[in-house]
Amino acid sequence: MDTMKALVKTQRAPGLELKRVPIPDVGARDALVRVMATSICGTDYHIYSWDVWSQDRINPPLIAGHEFAGEVIEVGRDVTHIQVGDHVSAETHIVCHHCAQCQLGAFHLCANTEIIGVDIDGAFAEYVAIPAENLWPNDPELDPGIASSQEPLGNAVHTAFDGPVAAQRIAVTGCGPIGLMSVAVLKKCGAQQIIATEVNAFRLNLARRMGADVVINPLEEDVVSTVMELTDGGGVDGVLEMSGNPQAINQGVKMLRPGGRISLLGVPAENEVTLDLSNDVIFKGLKVNGIAGRKMWETWRNVRGLLAAGLDISPIITHTLPLEEFEKGMELMASGNSGKIILTL
Amino acid sequence: MDTMKALVKTQRAPGLELKRVPIPDVGARDALVRVMATSICGTDYHIYSWDVWSQDRINPPLIAGHEFAGEVIEVGRDVTHIQVGDHVSAETHIVCHHCAQCQLGAFHLCANTEIIGVDIDGAFAEYVAIPAENLWPNDPELDPGIASSQEPLGNAVHTAFDGPVAAQRIAVTGCGPIGLMSVAVLKKCGAQQIIATEVNAFRLNLARRMGADVVINPLEEDVVSTVMELTDGGGVDGVLEMSGNPQAINQGVKMLRPGGRISLLGVPAENEVTLDLSNDVIFKGLKVNGIAGRKMWETWRNVRGLLAAGLDISPIITHTLPLEEFEKGMELMASGNSGKIILTL
Amino acid sequence: MDTMKALVKTQRAPGLELKRVPIPDVGARDALVRVMATSICGTDYHIYSWDVWSQDRINPPLIAGHEFAGEVIEVGRDVTHIQVGDHVSAETHIVCHHCAQCQLGAFHLCANTEIIGVDIDGAFAEYVAIPAENLWPNDPELDPGIASSQEPLGNAVHTAFDGPVAAQRIAVTGCGPIGLMSVAVLKKCGAQQIIATEVNAFRLNLARRMGADVVINPLEEDVVSTVMELTDGGGVDGVLEMSGNPQAINQGVKMLRPGGRISLLGVPAENEVTLDLSNDVIFKGLKVNGIAGRKMWETWRNVRGLLAAGLDISPIITHTLPLEEFEKGMELMASGNSGKIILTL
Amino acid sequence: MDTMKALVKTQRAPGLELKRVPIPDVGARDALVRVMATSICGTDYHIYSWDVWSQDRINPPLIAGHEFAGEVIEVGRDVTHIQVGDHVSAETHIVCHHCAQCQLGAFHLCANTEIIGVDIDGAFAEYVAIPAENLWPNDPELDPGIASSQEPLGNAVHTAFDGPVAAQRIAVTGCGPIGLMSVAVLKKCGAQQIIATEVNAFRLNLARRMGADVVINPLEEDVVSTVMELTDGGGVDGVLEMSGNPQAINQGVKMLRPGGRISLLGVPAENEVTLDLSNDVIFKGLKVNGIAGRKMWETWRNVRGLLAAGLDISPIITHTLPLEEFEKGMELMASGNSGKIILTL
Repeated sequence: MDTMKALVKTQRAPGLELKRVPIPDVGARDALVRVMATSICGTDYHIYSWDVWSQDRINPPLIAGHEFAGEVIEVGRDVTHIQVGDHVSAETHIVCHHCAQCQLGAFHLCANTEIIGVDIDGAFAEYVAIPAENLWPNDPELDPGIASSQEPLGNAVHTAFDGPVAAQRIAVTGCGPIGLMSVAVLKKCGAQQIIATEVNAFRLNLARRMGADVVINPLEEDVVSTVMELTDGGGVDGVLEMSGNPQAINQGVKMLRPGGRISLLGVPAENEVTLDLSNDVIFKGLKVNGIAGRKMWETWRNVRGLLAAGLDISPIITHTLPLEEFEKGMELMASGNSGKIILTL
Repeated sequence: MDTMKALVKTQRAPGLELKRVPIPDVGARDALVRVMATSICGTDYHIYSWDVWSQDRINPPLIAGHEFAGEVIEVGRDVTHIQVGDHVSAETHIVCHHCAQCQLGAFHLCANTEIIGVDIDGAFAEYVAIPAENLWPNDPELDPGIASSQEPLGNAVHTAFDGPVAAQRIAVTGCGPIGLMSVAVLKKCGAQQIIATEVNAFRLNLARRMGADVVINPLEEDVVSTVMELTDGGGVDGVLEMSGNPQAINQGVKMLRPGGRISLLGVPAENEVTLDLSNDVIFKGLKVNGIAGRKMWETWRNVRGLLAAGLDISPIITHTLPLEEFEKGMELMASGNSGKIILTL
Repeated sequence: MDTMKALVKTQRAPGLELKRVPIPDVGARDALVRVMATSICGTDYHIYSWDVWSQDRINPPLIAGHEFAGEVIEVGRDVTHIQVGDHVSAETHIVCHHCAQCQLGAFHLCANTEIIGVDIDGAFAEYVAIPAENLWPNDPELDPGIASSQEPLGNAVHTAFDGPVAAQRIAVTGCGPIGLMSVAVLKKCGAQQIIATEVNAFRLNLARRMGADVVINPLEEDVVSTVMELTDGGGVDGVLEMSGNPQAINQGVKMLRPGGRISLLGVPAENEVTLDLSNDVIFKGLKVNGIAGRKMWETWRNVRGLLAAGLDISPIITHTLPLEEFEKGMELMASGNSGKIILTL
Repeated sequence: MDTMKALVKTQRAPGLELKRVPIPDVGARDALVRVMATSICGTDYHIYSWDVWSQDRINPPLIAGHEFAGEVIEVGRDVTHIQVGDHVSAETHIVCHHCAQCQLGAFHLCANTEIIGVDIDGAFAEYVAIPAENLWPNDPELDPGIASSQEPLGNAVHTAFDGPVAAQRIAVTGCGPIGLMSVAVLKKCGAQQIIATEVNAFRLNLARRMGADVVINPLEEDVVSTVMELTDGGGVDGVLEMSGNPQAINQGVKMLRPGGRISLLGVPAENEVTLDLSNDVIFKGLKVNGIAGRKMWETWRNVRGLLAAGLDISPIITHTLPLEEFEKGMELMASGNSGKIILTL
């Protein structure tokens, strides 16, 4: 049990290397988890493809991956509330507890956040060691793929619950895995009307299956005028922006009714976006909210509660592969012809 | 068309009299509605049975009834946004627009509220004349019984939406028609766990049918300890108090987790209730919220949105009778072996 | 009493014409007010200077002006809660009461708003006729200049109260009259630290006088780094954006701590603004809120309450001129060497 | 440095004993603080007088006291963010971090709270050892008496900020030290009108000095009718209940406008209180909120912010005595002729 297999970013270049590395040490407040399932996030693909963001942020060697489910096999000296044998997932933001945001309970916005699989070694491995306080206990009966997907499901829930949902008309712009999950969440929570936008036919069909009342392909239809027609000219109450696409963001603010909210989770690749602030935000009294991470631990409790209430995200898990086939997983991810992709160990 | 049939409280005594009375005049800002369905509220039963509250509040002669659905057949001179032919229900609180609460948008708490069927003639009649601003347009396809029931459904929605619902553990204490509706609303809106309490077997079964995960009969089980067991010792996140029963209210605050909310819609018959404020409210940091009426018009929009989203309250409408059989309706109401009772015209 | 003097936009060109026009008719729900004081808003200057916005929106002939205080001298047939002799100011947004926003109590975001002095004749005149429901009763003892300034003070209060104020660190970007008023409001309401930015020396001094702890001239200092130093590297909790300047808006999001809010009241002249949404809004979990008008009537009540509590905005009223000297007032406004300018009648 | 003086509850009987005891051990996550000032809380007086609550809760031997300010002289092995030499006060609730409330960020409502000076040894001593995470860094320039009083000031701020303050009409029922502090907080934060009730003349005068616009002695005036007159018959927007007196609580709900809030901090000695729930809470749509402790750490940040903004609570510190004169302090406390009483070391 001295070494383990892991997907390691070994060089400042595209790709990940499957290799054997030492099993990580367990600090006084850490736990060591045997990974049963890990899932591929967009961030992992950025690291894999070595995009501009990765080149700036990642310092190899690094084990990638942060979404996972597993079993605790060792705990540090000072760990009391987690036991060996517990089934767990993890909040991937390690926070400082002392900055203004942490003092205000907004841990997800900690000024000193470190992210698992980005700033420290991650979960694309047989074992991962992380602060025990970051672990979230799972029902041992919960499917490891679903359990691993709770972290991105948390993003979807955080974004959806950033404003009212029940009895509201809500658009989801972009139906990647988190967008699809948010459609399912909206459906489960009594949204009046769910409108999804997506260019990929595979994901568009999945959006319909997860509960979207209407799906619009922006390449084929004028999104704003279609949404206005669907809402009697008034606009939707809320937009969950999941694409990071500047055009989608602009359509989002235009398709909202005055006083509505747009919750921005998708990250624009070029960072800068031009908006008609006067007409689309100020005169309309919009709320434009940035969304990062998941509330610790309110969002995790909500995720657990929704799963207990019967929320079924299993159709979104379109592929389950052994860790060794990670390159196939990355390709599927890039193609868009996939939902969430699970790697098993 | 000079006279109409109506159920009139003619004397300061129990009962209502079915008689012909003049069709009401239509003021400059009023609309005259041909009633298609009207439903029996607890308030109507209080007036019928001439309880202490009624003796204090009601000045005969009065046409009772305030829940209804119908068609507009005449509008006053100054009415612009409602047309003859519109299908409508009504908000039953007529408000002043000028008190502090109205200025703050809390119209439902207007200091000068007049209530249809209580302070002015109501809807247990072929025709009812009310301020046009109180009308709520219905989809003509909407079943008149459901349409009439939107007013009490609004109470249920107002109470449920007084705090978070999605992913929450919530108890409903008392499963009369509004309690049953609130169970359906909680289910539709993603509550994690719905616990209902009720002594009547008929209503208890209906609660289960509407989506309650657990139903407790307080005559047979210890409510607080059962709820604590069901919630791993922690207590529920919210209580919707629908009974007005002092014991249920005390159980409600005891079954809540610290920081939870109890939303009080049920009205205690004796008004005064003794609570262990120190241990059950202050140290626990509870929120104890009185609920009155429906938000104008946020609640009505939410009711419409939930019905559009597929909320089905039809199982709660257990009896539909012609207006003439109102006494049978009142008896059914008193028996507890009923949900919502509709009178048709 | 058949004609009155008024400042009329008579042609699609710069300027206003002082001329005699008929006293307006009083509709059934209107009141006729004898104007005692009216104040110049940025909107009035736009109309006067005939900028791009005005060319698109204004249809001459039009009496400009919307901030005012006066005495009611006649009321329409259906007016009940306002009497002849009442001292009043007015909410300048005339709303429909039936759109989604009005139904939700967000009257200030009504989809069918008409604005006094923009869409219908305004208050730069001896008399103005407007819907009685738009009138706000004033204490007759209140100085007419202050009373007239309640409308823009309402903008300041609406913007300030868009998030927490007490014990918060807040920056005000832009110290025109409304920015100055917001500084005074923040001071009155227990803000921990008030940082104001402004390029004009006159207004910068006035900001200090109204309670700004620090004033920064963006032409002389780097705003973001200065604010970061002043807040121990953490950033402010809130920004009240009063300038509409794209650079100030970008500085505003950068000087906020994660989780902070920026409330946008200033309107960018070119409408479009480019923001680093990824780094400045999404990853930081910011709230970017458009602010329009004043909440009806919550903001007006707050304005009244703050004045009653001793809020003193009189230093912001830098000039009081007779209506005839409106051109001097417009010049003072354009110079920036002024606060609020009152025109008396 | 092996022993220290301390006020110890040595027996299950009234009184505290000034004696020498061992200086406490410092655990791995603890800090040892040299106490410079400690202040007497009502809880301390309960323990001193050995009331019913104390007999049930306190297990002698116990060093009492929980409000304090001091200097860190030693830190445990695992403590990183607190250094020897730091000036500190402390949050007196030691929380579990794992119950539902802690997960939701409502640490002050932790289900497993332990309180300093109640459940573990406290601060009426030369030295106190507590978890370092409970320490709050103070500006070394801050007067130790004020610094020690931040904990009860936190109660006042938590209660006041439980609802809107600026531009509101608010009553404070009961002017003990925390009631007096809340008057000062309301004044600092722009309340429109502050009405205080109190039976003790000394405290009543102090309430006026701290900013109460009106002070009412319930023994001499009818509180509810006086408040109604003062608010034009409408009632106050908020009540801060600081007395725990059942009559004051009943007056509190009656003097509120519909939709108002009453924030209950005072603890009824007999626990049970009878309220007219129907008329005073439900029909009025009141919010009745229990208040416990202080939000960790939002309230502490607000306390710091208000002190920085110039909030001056020094007039409330009416007596400063050496620790040895604690019995005189307890007598002053019981007399009511005092505000906050500081014990110095």
